[in-house]
Amino acid sequence: MSNRWILSEYDVESPFQQPAPFLKMLKSHGLEVTHTRLIGGRRDGVELLTVNNGDFSFTTIPTRGMGIHQAKHGDLRLGWNSPVEGPVHPRFVPLAEPSGLGWLDGMDELIVRCGLESNGAPEHDSETGRLKYPLHGRIANQPTEDVVVEVSEEGELCIRGEVRETRFLCYNVAMETEIRTQPGEKGFRIRDRITNRSAQSTTAQMLYHINLGAPILGKGASVVCPAVEICPRNDCAASGIVDWSTYSEPKVGFEEQVFFMQLAADNKGDTCALLKNSEGDKGVSVHFNIKQLPYFIVWKNTAAEQDGYVTGLEPATNFPNPHSFEKEKGRVINLGPEAVYEIDLALQFHPDAASVKEVETKIANLTAGREAKLHRIPQADWCS
Amino acid sequence: MSNRWILSEYDVESPFQQPAPFLKMLKSHGLEVTHTRLIGGRRDGVELLTVNNGDFSFTTIPTRGMGIHQAKHGDLRLGWNSPVEGPVHPRFVPLAEPSGLGWLDGMDELIVRCGLESNGAPEHDSETGRLKYPLHGRIANQPTEDVVVEVSEEGELCIRGEVRETRFLCYNVAMETEIRTQPGEKGFRIRDRITNRSAQSTTAQMLYHINLGAPILGKGASVVCPAVEICPRNDCAASGIVDWSTYSEPKVGFEEQVFFMQLAADNKGDTCALLKNSEGDKGVSVHFNIKQLPYFIVWKNTAAEQDGYVTGLEPATNFPNPHSFEKEKGRVINLGPEAVYEIDLALQFHPDAASVKEVETKIANLTAGREAKLHRIPQADWCS
Amino acid sequence: MSNRWILSEYDVESPFQQPAPFLKMLKSHGLEVTHTRLIGGRRDGVELLTVNNGDFSFTTIPTRGMGIHQAKHGDLRLGWNSPVEGPVHPRFVPLAEPSGLGWLDGMDELIVRCGLESNGAPEHDSETGRLKYPLHGRIANQPTEDVVVEVSEEGELCIRGEVRETRFLCYNVAMETEIRTQPGEKGFRIRDRITNRSAQSTTAQMLYHINLGAPILGKGASVVCPAVEICPRNDCAASGIVDWSTYSEPKVGFEEQVFFMQLAADNKGDTCALLKNSEGDKGVSVHFNIKQLPYFIVWKNTAAEQDGYVTGLEPATNFPNPHSFEKEKGRVINLGPEAVYEIDLALQFHPDAASVKEVETKIANLTAGREAKLHRIPQADWCS
Repeated sequence: MSNRWILSEYDVESPFQQPAPFLKMLKSHGLEVTHTRLIGGRRDGVELLTVNNGDFSFTTIPTRGMGIHQAKHGDLRLGWNSPVEGPVHPRFVPLAEPSGLGWLDGMDELIVRCGLESNGAPEHDSETGRLKYPLHGRIANQPTEDVVVEVSEEGELCIRGEVRETRFLCYNVAMETEIRTQPGEKGFRIRDRITNRSAQSTTAQMLYHINLGAPILGKGASVVCPAVEICPRNDCAASGIVDWSTYSEPKVGFEEQVFFMQLAADNKGDTCALLKNSEGDKGVSVHFNIKQLPYFIVWKNTAAEQDGYVTGLEPATNFPNPHSFEKEKGRVINLGPEAVYEIDLALQFHPDAASVKEVETKIANLTAGREAKLHRIPQADWCS
Repeated sequence: MSNRWILSEYDVESPFQQPAPFLKMLKSHGLEVTHTRLIGGRRDGVELLTVNNGDFSFTTIPTRGMGIHQAKHGDLRLGWNSPVEGPVHPRFVPLAEPSGLGWLDGMDELIVRCGLESNGAPEHDSETGRLKYPLHGRIANQPTEDVVVEVSEEGELCIRGEVRETRFLCYNVAMETEIRTQPGEKGFRIRDRITNRSAQSTTAQMLYHINLGAPILGKGASVVCPAVEICPRNDCAASGIVDWSTYSEPKVGFEEQVFFMQLAADNKGDTCALLKNSEGDKGVSVHFNIKQLPYFIVWKNTAAEQDGYVTGLEPATNFPNPHSFEKEKGRVINLGPEAVYEIDLALQFHPDAASVKEVETKIANLTAGREAKLHRIPQADWCS
Repeated sequence: MSNRWILSEYDVESPFQQPAPFLKMLKSHGLEVTHTRLIGGRRDGVELLTVNNGDFSFTTIPTRGMGIHQAKHGDLRLGWNSPVEGPVHPRFVPLAEPSGLGWLDGMDELIVRCGLESNGAPEHDSETGRLKYPLHGRIANQPTEDVVVEVSEEGELCIRGEVRETRFLCYNVAMETEIRTQPGEKGFRIRDRITNRSAQSTTAQMLYHINLGAPILGKGASVVCPAVEICPRNDCAASGIVDWSTYSEPKVGFEEQVFFMQLAADNKGDTCALLKNSEGDKGVSVHFNIKQLPYFIVWKNTAAEQDGYVTGLEPATNFPNPHSFEKEKGRVINLGPEAVYEIDLALQFHPDAASVKEVETKIANLTAGREAKLHRIPQADWCS
């Protein structure tokens, strides 16, 4: 028989005490917030903020650009099993690695923001070969400043914070983020304000990499969205274009397929996309506005479970091509001095067939029966 | 009405207790020292040491090579408002980024040392294009070892520490630093000993990037120094050569102008330079020795306030050109086995017109009325 | 007289309490384990685990891939005086630096593992010039997850942990390590299980960089091993091939010499190598199996003491050439889906002449009098 001393329970400590009036207000609405700090391994020093609104909970990671690690409704977890097994502290994510692929060392959240100076495939200087823009940018691996949790008298809880991409003389854009939920809500709402802090004009990009695995994803699961036009990113995606909206079981060695699209919306620009399971009785919908996020990407990575069986629903300001290509095509945000670009995004869980059906109907109404224009091969304007 | 839980007050903790005799001695001279550790955001884990001599206070950052974050005389702060909003922990400063510009992510101190293996513009290998020397070197982003605070019976306070640039088989140079102040002193004195720890010869470089913004800097502020010869770094600086010593108000999009120079000194080699405000009743002077720091650089960056309205007074062992250029021109320190290169530098605040006038007179005496040789264009020997 | 406040005693704190039954069992066998966390400088945040079996102690570094920092028998330390003066936290080791040499900033342990995706000299892409494989890989600068210390009823102490090299979509190999010792043992045993966590095949490499300086190493010290074939890595090593097994005193500017070899073994594949001092009354032997670690490297770096007077005994799965060369020569481990490659390695201290003699006899028996084939120049198959 052995006696053990476990040194990696990821014990937690928060240096911050919840003030009594805050705590009282929380309790009166059946809300709960916890702040923890992880110990040991690649997680060492990572801060987590977990919110439980009574019915639905989610965890944000201040240390990782206020990304959403995972969410839960009862025992059902929304997220995926990344081989990365994070959350990984940014110090173990080598963004500056010459390959531009270091970002992949930290990739395991439910929602990862890609930006702000750039997102998409890494880009190297064509003359010197030096890295100019790393894969999916820096914002997901920048820690959050000025974190505050607020609860209103009506019981709406709001997490605020600011994530900065600042290089003296070069770039100074901040993302002011608010994440809100309230009792009874089976999800949360994000408002990000991308703010140019400089007196000079600049550009920005943003993509929300919303990643879902089992149990929503599975053989026969499907994505439902009001696509107007769809295009495969490359030849591999083209080979799967016919089945772009449905998913297979995990397949060893499956090569990722990425589909670029634009969605229909209501007269305010509001639209949404749904991932539902094969039975149609569980789903996750993503809500956004095409004036803010005009492009939508579906990422299918139905590889073996241990290699990350996952799909991404990705509303974005652009397609995830190298930065220069997107800039040339006019798909970057131009930000004048001190300008702000506001983005609203909501995630909602659908726990039953009725709720799934409801959002499907809403999506169907957006296209009003028109079929999407389906390109069989990559289009020059969309694909680098 | 909202109830808030603030998670980013940058609460502090020092694991080290001040010993009773130390504390008693401090108090008997009206001195105060605090050691803190910041929590959250890009500052997470940064250590600060703040010294108050009764009349003047300053903060050093052991975590960032014992740079000087800012200083204060009453309510007047010496320093600048960098868009970086540090202090930034070195783990968020990607010195090894292929561009060589990662250093700019952490640039916000009153005094930043640039060195030791190199300083100046980044340099890439001409054949492979790979980064050889990152902008301004590594020393400002190396943590300090063996930090000790001492107070003498006479009331002189001294902070000691050692910052190392060590790469096995390649480089092993340490900077042993001492920062001193005493009651009544409106400033502090630095002594750095650049020490080759290897049994083999090597080289080193050092530049003190002393950065000042408002309220000393402002429209009509000027730099006063005993220049013997002055040269603009590039065409942009050349366009401003006539007004090199005076400053404008903040201007959106102002492109930095850099002036290289050599200063006159007394017969011991001691010299100084002054930045005074437009009224001439406030100023900061920098004191050094031209045998130790033979070159002087004025950096004008009178950009918009939010882009960093700032000027740099920069005594140095060399000009901030790429390392190879400076080496070719003989402007690197040669360090034999275990050799030491000592540098003394003092910063002094001038709170009134009389004090400003006094240092101006001293500077005037150094040149004895001789005019500086003013080059209108970059000189081949000085500018790469 | 001065009064001092010391801020860098590297004070320690462990967030983990040893459970009473564990502690009781430890004590009943005269064992001791301590877990500490260092504060300040480049060590800030480094975790150490120190085991004392009553007669012999050693320190592992969970934060640095569970490397062995040093060991002690009484007052005699096994290890070396690296100019690096670590242990250095991985955040101060720029593995991704374009040069590929950043690993050298953290090099100061008794045992450093080199791997897992690659080890050996850095390799850059021949077309783009970009870093592909940094010097000696990433494993030594990855923190350990799931650390547990166990003690059996018989008094065998075991430290377990797992070190991961995981890049989503690219690589997912873990090293499950166990380090064991027991009362009376003058050393420790390591079992590493290199595990492919992916559903797809991959490759791995491993080299144990076992580094010893004074007092074992010194003028007249020698390495004794059952070499079958020996080859100098390059011209510099070739110039020292005749004296490959004996050591000189420290010499300023000594250029490292590296010898590649294969060793004889018993019919189970077990073999060992010894470093003994000039008197032959102190030594350290390394025990391993040539079916697991078929190659052996002797690294002589008898430079000046302050530049790191040290030798390496390095059992490995390959020679430390660039990754592509080793792959081409078939000297990488092929790992099928979820495959495991197990490696056993033991280090033993020999405190007296009898103990040294005993292991020497054992080694002599392995070769049974046959002389090693000694190549005078680098061989094309072994040396890149």
